[in-house]
Parts: sequence; structure tokens; C-alpha cells
Amino acid sequence: MVAPIVPVEGLVVTASNGIRSHDSVINLDHGDPMIYEKFWKETGDVSSFKIQGWENMSYFSDRSNLCWFLHHEFASQIRRIHRLVGNAFADENCHIVVGNGSTQLFQAALYALSTHPSLAETCRPIPVVSVVPHYSGYPAATDVLQSALYKWAGDANSFDPHATDPFIEVICSPNNPDGLLNNSVFKQITNNIHDLAYYWPQYTPITNAADYNIMLFTVSKCTGHAGSRLGWALVKDKDVASRMVQFVELGTIGVSKDSQLRAATILRAVADGYEEGGGYKLFHFGRKVMTERWDRLRQVLMANGAFSLLEYPPPAYCGFMREKTSHLPAFAWLKYEGNLDIEDTANFLRTKHNMLTRSGKHFGTDSKYVRISLLEREETFNIFIDRMSSIF
Amino acid sequence: MVAPIVPVEGLVVTASNGIRSHDSVINLDHGDPMIYEKFWKETGDVSSFKIQGWENMSYFSDRSNLCWFLHHEFASQIRRIHRLVGNAFADENCHIVVGNGSTQLFQAALYALSTHPSLAETCRPIPVVSVVPHYSGYPAATDVLQSALYKWAGDANSFDPHATDPFIEVICSPNNPDGLLNNSVFKQITNNIHDLAYYWPQYTPITNAADYNIMLFTVSKCTGHAGSRLGWALVKDKDVASRMVQFVELGTIGVSKDSQLRAATILRAVADGYEEGGGYKLFHFGRKVMTERWDRLRQVLMANGAFSLLEYPPPAYCGFMREKTSHLPAFAWLKYEGNLDIEDTANFLRTKHNMLTRSGKHFGTDSKYVRISLLEREETFNIFIDRMSSIF
Repeated sequence: MVAPIVPVEGLVVTASNGIRSHDSVINLDHGDPMIYEKFWKETGDVSSFKIQGWENMSYFSDRSNLCWFLHHEFASQIRRIHRLVGNAFADENCHIVVGNGSTQLFQAALYALSTHPSLAETCRPIPVVSVVPHYSGYPAATDVLQSALYKWAGDANSFDPHATDPFIEVICSPNNPDGLLNNSVFKQITNNIHDLAYYWPQYTPITNAADYNIMLFTVSKCTGHAGSRLGWALVKDKDVASRMVQFVELGTIGVSKDSQLRAATILRAVADGYEEGGGYKLFHFGRKVMTERWDRLRQVLMANGAFSLLEYPPPAYCGFMREKTSHLPAFAWLKYEGNLDIEDTANFLRTKHNMLTRSGKHFGTDSKYVRISLLEREETFNIFIDRMSSIF
Repeated sequence: MVAPIVPVEGLVVTASNGIRSHDSVINLDHGDPMIYEKFWKETGDVSSFKIQGWENMSYFSDRSNLCWFLHHEFASQIRRIHRLVGNAFADENCHIVVGNGSTQLFQAALYALSTHPSLAETCRPIPVVSVVPHYSGYPAATDVLQSALYKWAGDANSFDPHATDPFIEVICSPNNPDGLLNNSVFKQITNNIHDLAYYWPQYTPITNAADYNIMLFTVSKCTGHAGSRLGWALVKDKDVASRMVQFVELGTIGVSKDSQLRAATILRAVADGYEEGGGYKLFHFGRKVMTERWDRLRQVLMANGAFSLLEYPPPAYCGFMREKTSHLPAFAWLKYEGNLDIEDTANFLRTKHNMLTRSGKHFGTDSKYVRISLLEREETFNIFIDRMSSIF
């Protein structure tokens, strides 16, 4: 998931040819995964999708399925990609709930957990917590309608589970914004939501198949098709899955079949690239480019010493890549440590260096930190590195 | 919009060839617009849509637009179809907000109106009312999260505006379920939501261009592409439009571009059919089939006398069809008046005649009434007429 977007009108200057001039503003605020565009251009017609005007017009995909708006082709490609990568258990024992992005599924999970029949009204609103720094989209999405069912309660580390029970913990791993591998603080099982948007081989070693009650994934961070607004949840409990389906039903009466069918084509191309010897290897492409970008970023950071970077876990054996691989987070999570007296790093980068980044304060921590997307197009990343090298 | 769907598992029996056997259950509960499938098959490749794997991957469509996730091609086809049909003012003075179906836009409008800066916390939750019989989806969509911002308050006719002010009135015209032309009860302007999903020439005469502050439309009922989950709102006030955009942003981070681009192709084919002499005339096709269906239904109802039908307004001059046209609602709204002692007509039709319809109780009235979709495929409609003729 990406954070809710606060458009900065008129700030983004892009030449018609797509190349940004060097005094223009570059946007690294969002996790817009344009890094994958190059890969998909190389695949050519293998990944193109065509649909006739009369196809898939109905609201329904499969009336007999618990998730009646889930298209079977998309479902089978989801199970296939998880089998291929080995990052999550997605066999027939778990229910797939499709959503308009994993953002909708996050809210569907909050709804499903907070409406459990066993919960007395008096328990509500149920607190929702996550370890700081947490994804900036969680609080806003949780509290948008001031629901009587659940309420954002902030940092899991400063939350007293005995004072309020039940509660819901959201675990994002690899974590947005800092890329660290988070675990549940409270080790509860039923009321955890696991956001695994970045648990793919290009970002982190796949060390085991995740096997949680509620696991959220999104096409955006896997293949880069953010514009398709498509996520999926792997859910063990049938009743929880049913209530998640009900939430998506009440909110949007299902999910675009056009997107599901296109995404099925995209996921099939990814799996075929590995299993049918198509030659196109998305995750290898992702690792290659992300490795180059992290190397260049580290060189710049070492050279100017103005920013401190986190210590990531050592490389680990990735069952998918069949070798030890390092952590290559989608975002750089930086703290300004330079000579200038700067409290708000994001503001400093925006006003002095024409770079839009996201301040740490949106992630529950202080504004010395910034989250910077490393998933933008090559020319944008080059300008970013160029400008970073001038900061001391 | 259609009502939230309560799947009736195992009830729908359809042969693999799509033809339903005569003892099978037919589903007329939803407004699934399969009636248009035949039309789109006839258009052939004119309405087919193709997209390359690398196209439209970004979250963003137009960062400079208030609705940053609205694709300009879809926007221009929306303005074009309204110009062509003349059913609503959609010039550059109004803002287009795209949503995952008009269901999401209905909730976005509730959010936008109930978060107006001028409203003190003490006003909330703001009552939401609509004339009975009202669309069955409004109450559930309004109260799903038990929001502190707004709350369903039922029938507008039994609501005292002086007791609680402000309040929000939803006007659906032509009305779902009964097809009547509704007007605002309270004649307020700013807090009205006008659901115009069925204000298209195949259902009703286009007597004027609607010009309300918030108008909701959906691709589903216009062209039949319900599976694309795409609706649009025409909004006059910039701040209201901004808050609607914020709601869609927080809920689903925008709307599928795949759907928007496919829908642009579909709407272009509709407009070209009239303006470029393509020969394909969607609204004429719709009127032709709906006229046949209403004629057959009226014959059956007159013959068996078991059901009473509403009196619809007399034919009126349709500015689009350039002739007087009659009302051809998408649903039949029937009351059982037969010899049997039946209180729950929908239950009677389901258990005795294998037909799924929607009970009047879901629309705020009594269960003597049923809403029956007239938009299903031909073979389903034929079975429906066949079975109705056997009821006395």
C-alpha cells in the first residue's frame, strides 16, 4: 500500500518527453512503482491484454464462490505465483478475497475482525495498533469515518494490551517505511493483520512461506501495476473472509473484472517467465535494478555523511533465488545528521532541493526522518542521486 | 447501483451452455444488466479494448487535476456522452469524480457533505433520508461502519427537518425500485445527493439536462458494464469534490485505470454509433428490447391478475430520441393481489416458482411488494414470463 496522497499542486514539473529538467521538482513522496515499466516494455506482447466489449459485463464472477466477485483466472494465478515464489501458503485451504487495492482489504479486515459475533458492543471501538514507524496510511484509513467499530491507537510498543482487550495489531513486513522485518509484538493470532505488500524476492530474501490468518498482498508492489488498484487477501477463517467480502460488497460491490483479468495476464507472464522459459524474469530484474540503486545511494550517503541509514539484517538464504540475498527495501528511510540546523528534513529537501519526500511525522516518529521512494523511473532516480550528492 | 448482494448459495442452477433448465432457479434479485451483452456482441471489434503490459502502471492519471486518479480519456468521453444525450450538464464548470461504482461515490458524497467545515461536531451523525420505497443499498452502505459522521434515518416523508438540521436527502430518479420520477422532498440544495443511475433514454424520456450540485452516474446501467465497477459524480462545489476525492483516496487510493480506459472505449463506441454513423445505437437497442419486455410483462399481468403494477407517468417528449417516449423502468415493482394468502411475495416466488426477487421490505416498505429485474439475458426473461403466466 502507499500512503494517502496529498497532491502538491503545480509543484511537479515534467517535460512532455518525460525527462525532468534539473531544476524541476521530483516526486519521491509516493511508492509509485514505475521502476517496473522498463521490464514490461521488454516483454512486449506477452503481457498485453485484450477484452471484447461484450465480455465480463456481469457483476458476478462466480456465484458459488465465497468471494463471488473474484475471477477464477486471477485466483488461479495468485495461487500459482505464491507456489512459484514460496512467500505464502495459498493452497485451497485459504480463502482469497480480492479488493480495490490492499488498502480496501486492510479496512475490510478491520471490519471483519471488529464485527466478530463474540464481541460485545462495550468492547468497541476496538483499538488498532502498529509498531512505529508504521505505514502512514493506516491511521487515516482507520479513522476516516470515525467508526464506532474500531479506532486508531498508535504505536504497538506503547500500548497496554491488558487495559483494552480485544485489540487489532497490524504488522507490515518488510516494513513500510523502514524496510525492517517486523514481527507481532503481542503474539496474538486471531486479531493480527499481516501486510505483506513487500514480501517479494526483489525486496527481501524469501526465507519461509508466510502462514498467518490474514495476509495482504498487492499487485502494485509485486509487478508494479499500481494503476490497476488490485490487492488480495489470503484468509484462513471462512467467517472472517465472508465479512471481508461483505465489506467490499457494501463499499464497491466487488472489484473490477477488467483489472482482475489484466492482472491474471500479468501474473501469468511472470510465472511463465520462470516456468515456461520465457526468458523474462521479473524478480531478477527487480533485484538487479534495486541492487544498483542501493549501491549508488550508499556511495552518496557515505560521501556526504549528511544522512544516517538503518542497519538492515545480514543477507539470508532466499528459497526462491536459491542463494543468499540482501535486503533491498523499496524506500530509503533516512535521518538528517548534517551540519545544518534542520528539524524538518522533508521540508528542507523540498524547499532547498526540489525533492518531495515524506516526513517521518506521518509515520508516527519525528520529522528528522524522511521516507524516499526508490521505485521511480531511472531518470528521476538519477536526479535524486545527483541532488543528494550536493547535500552536506 | 444495485443492492448489496446476499448470495443464495447453491440455488442458482445454470447449465454449462448457459441455458437454464425450466425447473432451475432464475435470479432476478439483482440489476445485473446482461440485456446489453447482445448489443456489444454485434458491435464486434469496435468495442474491444487492448492494453500493453507497460501502459498505465502509475497510481496517477493527472497530478494537476483535482481528481488526480481520473483518466482524461474517460473524463472526455463522460462529458461527450452527456452532451450527446443531454441528460445532465457536464461542462468544464463541474468537477468529475470517478469511483469504484456509484456505490462508492454515494458514500464519498455522504463523507464530503458531513465533513463540511461549518458543521459542528454536535450536529453529527447527520441523518440521511430518502423517500420510501428507496434503493435497498442506501441504508446498509450508510451504516456499515457505524460512522459518527452520518446515520441512516429512513423515509424522507416521515422525517422532520426542523427537529434535526442539517440532514442529507438522497433522491433517486428514475427511482430504484419503482421507476418513478422522484423530486427532492425538502427542496434544499446543498445537501442533496441525486442518484441518476437510470436517467438514460432507454429507461425514461430525457426531458431536461439535470443540473444538481451532486449527480451520480454509473457505467453499469448506461452501457451494461457492471463488472467494470465504474461510476462518476458530477459535482459543482470544488471543496465538496475535493473531499469526495479524499474519500476515494483513503478507501481505495483511486480507481482502476484499466476500467477507466476500457469504459472510455465503450463510451466512445456509443457516441460514435450516433455521431460517426457507426450504425450501432445503444439507446435505441435498449428501448427496443425494454419495450418488448414491458409489453410481454403487461400482457401476462393483465391475463392472470395476480399482481398490480404502478401507474407510470404518461409518455413525454425525449429530447434525445426526438419523439414522445414511454417509461421503461429497469425493474418491475409488483404487489401480489392474487387469491392466495401471501404476505411475503418474494418468498412465495422463490419457494413456489424458483424465482429470486427482492422483497419490498428491503426498500423500506412491506413484503407484499417485490422488485424484479428486467435486465437479465433473454432466456432468463423468457423463463420469468413463462412462470409468471402460471401464477393466479
